[in-house]
Amino acid sequence: MENRIYNFNPGPAMQPLEVLQEAQAEFLNFAKSGMSIIEISHRSKQYEQVHNQAKADIKELMGLGDDYEVLFCQGGASMQFTMIPQNFAVDGKVGNYVLSGSFATKAYDEAKLLNRGFVAASSKDRDFKHIPTQDEIKLSDNAAYLHLCYNNTIYGTEYHYIPETGDVPLIADMSSDMLSRPLDFSKFSLIYAGAQKNLGPAGVVVVVARKSFLENSPKEVPTMLRYDTYLKKNSLYNTPPAFGIYMVGKVVAWIKANGGLEAMAKKNAAKAKLVYDAIDNSDGFYVGHADKDSRSFMNVTFRLPSEELEAKFAKEALEHGLGGVKGHRSVGGMRTSIYNAMPMEGCQALVDFMEKFRKANK
Amino acid sequence: MENRIYNFNPGPAMQPLEVLQEAQAEFLNFAKSGMSIIEISHRSKQYEQVHNQAKADIKELMGLGDDYEVLFCQGGASMQFTMIPQNFAVDGKVGNYVLSGSFATKAYDEAKLLNRGFVAASSKDRDFKHIPTQDEIKLSDNAAYLHLCYNNTIYGTEYHYIPETGDVPLIADMSSDMLSRPLDFSKFSLIYAGAQKNLGPAGVVVVVARKSFLENSPKEVPTMLRYDTYLKKNSLYNTPPAFGIYMVGKVVAWIKANGGLEAMAKKNAAKAKLVYDAIDNSDGFYVGHADKDSRSFMNVTFRLPSEELEAKFAKEALEHGLGGVKGHRSVGGMRTSIYNAMPMEGCQALVDFMEKFRKANK
Ligand SMILES: Cc1ncc(COP(=O)(O)O)c(C=O)c1O
Ligand SMILES: Cc1ncc(COP(=O)(O)O)c(C=O)c1O
Ligand SMILES: [Mg+2]
Ligand SMILES: [Mg+2]
Ligand SMILES: [Mg+2]
Ligand SMILES: [Mg+2]
Repeated sequence: MENRIYNFNPGPAMQPLEVLQEAQAEFLNFAKSGMSIIEISHRSKQYEQVHNQAKADIKELMGLGDDYEVLFCQGGASMQFTMIPQNFAVDGKVGNYVLSGSFATKAYDEAKLLNRGFVAASSKDRDFKHIPTQDEIKLSDNAAYLHLCYNNTIYGTEYHYIPETGDVPLIADMSSDMLSRPLDFSKFSLIYAGAQKNLGPAGVVVVVARKSFLENSPKEVPTMLRYDTYLKKNSLYNTPPAFGIYMVGKVVAWIKANGGLEAMAKKNAAKAKLVYDAIDNSDGFYVGHADKDSRSFMNVTFRLPSEELEAKFAKEALEHGLGGVKGHRSVGGMRTSIYNAMPMEGCQALVDFMEKFRKANK
Repeated sequence: MENRIYNFNPGPAMQPLEVLQEAQAEFLNFAKSGMSIIEISHRSKQYEQVHNQAKADIKELMGLGDDYEVLFCQGGASMQFTMIPQNFAVDGKVGNYVLSGSFATKAYDEAKLLNRGFVAASSKDRDFKHIPTQDEIKLSDNAAYLHLCYNNTIYGTEYHYIPETGDVPLIADMSSDMLSRPLDFSKFSLIYAGAQKNLGPAGVVVVVARKSFLENSPKEVPTMLRYDTYLKKNSLYNTPPAFGIYMVGKVVAWIKANGGLEAMAKKNAAKAKLVYDAIDNSDGFYVGHADKDSRSFMNVTFRLPSEELEAKFAKEALEHGLGGVKGHRSVGGMRTSIYNAMPMEGCQALVDFMEKFRKANK
């Protein structure tokens, strides 16, 4: 179809073909408005419908009620890294962080810059191969929140439990596993995700948070960095990234139409099993980076016997219509990202290629 | 064509039809990558080409050389309102502001929140009907910069001169007149524009600035709010709003192909004359908001004899295929935005309707 490839990029990432086709078909004339979605006023009824439906669908998929709100922000997940301590690590309280990978560390660094960061646990000394366990997490006195990076896109690790924090609010960066499976989301005070993996294009961040948690931004925080600006104005204080929100709306509608988070979880588990089995059954040709109990369902990281073979693997994979398999420079090797939009057939094509490549190069 | 209307919205705004058609045609498979532009890695060669070409074309159109850099930021022009004082109103210096409308005032408010703002001139007492003259502008001691809103989208006024500031750097919000005409851009240290008017979709801000001005962000400024982050990393520190940048690239290529800023200026002046003449020759039925010497070439604001007639005008205009003509609530009446993408025919259709409406309702 249109010579499209299976796209294993970590983000921006593969999107459902049906979603792309829909957006393409109505690109010159959205909702009979006579305008493109990129040309229509963000104060129009047609746009508001898109905006509010996307919010409602996200909450419905996550099983959250009226005490939660969905916000749309800009600046990428990276902008959240500073918004979080500015809004919440206040009144002498300290942001607590689990360092489980690069983005987790970058989030901590922004709190540290404000002198409001504390490391509650870290797996850095073991090359971020595992997710710290409940026992490893030690909160500080006066903890404002505990911040987790729920899925570590670069290292290919993912939480398989929700840490207990007592009264301390839990915040999670779910940029790379948002809406990939059901979870008791009500245990979190705030969840955020850059859209460019499981949710749509780059340029919009989806924030899902308990309303009461968002209400009291300190008065010295600039308007665009205050969560209460977005809360009070339905994320329409200024011009929102309308095209991104529109695409997120289409992606969440697609998730709903395809069985919701239970169905995503089932499919994602089957896809991940296929790829991890190919690694585990390769007689040591492929070596996974993550500890088995911390493996990500979204980003599968592995090494080959040499860097030469890794380069060859990436090159030949692309010739087989499998794109974006090169790993991040800080881990090396390969990373195959298999978000919601990656079909089972894509993973099958990948493991077929892996097996063929192994036989030819072992 | 596809039942599109003439779209007079202030932003998001009308885009060139050819640009929309091109983007639509390649939406499923960009540059033979087998991926959509929204799915492709921001570290790929194909994306980098788009990113760097857009930058080069913007500088070429503006007649700027190697001492200037183009940055792509997020958060809308509103995020610049806080980035500017955080980066530049430092070492005890004070940001100076001309209050010429609502966005000019919002920019000032963010500096004031940091206790670093000074009002160098204001036209508030005259309902923002005019642009303060050189004589009205009084800089403070220790001025870090003078900030102007070059075109006031809501009030329909525009600078027709560049203020002299001696050694004090000049900063301009050109969100609503960026690339609408040539200017000696080298007189400005920093120019910024939310893309959603003359440049493309909402979700990307184009910043054009003198490199030496951008190099010294104070160390306490968060990573995503530092101009030097964008400067050092070619605006690729984190995932950029790739689709927005791609569309900006297409729009600037369209401007180049259509004669550059000289040709835009000529067409925009002719369009504006058509609409202002319809106001001025209406025997007082239509009354312009802006003083004649401060009139904007981009946003034409005017009132009708009553609010009832104004509501009727907007409704009947839409029936004539003319959308988005309602004014902002703070001015009332009508506002017709006639950015680069609005063809002469759109303005002709507007003034034909204005004349017909006047005759029927005078
Ligand atoms: C888990 C995680 N957090 C944060 C980020 C940074 O996101 P952005 O590029 O949107 O700032 C990424 C990007 O890949 C990520 O994977
Ligand atoms: C001149 C001007 N400055 C700033 C803004 C605010 O832009 P944004 O909505 O991108 O924050 C606008 C928006 O209409 C504008 O017209
Ligand atoms: Mg990581
Ligand atoms: Mg606006
Ligand atoms: Mg204004
Ligand atoms: Mg990224």
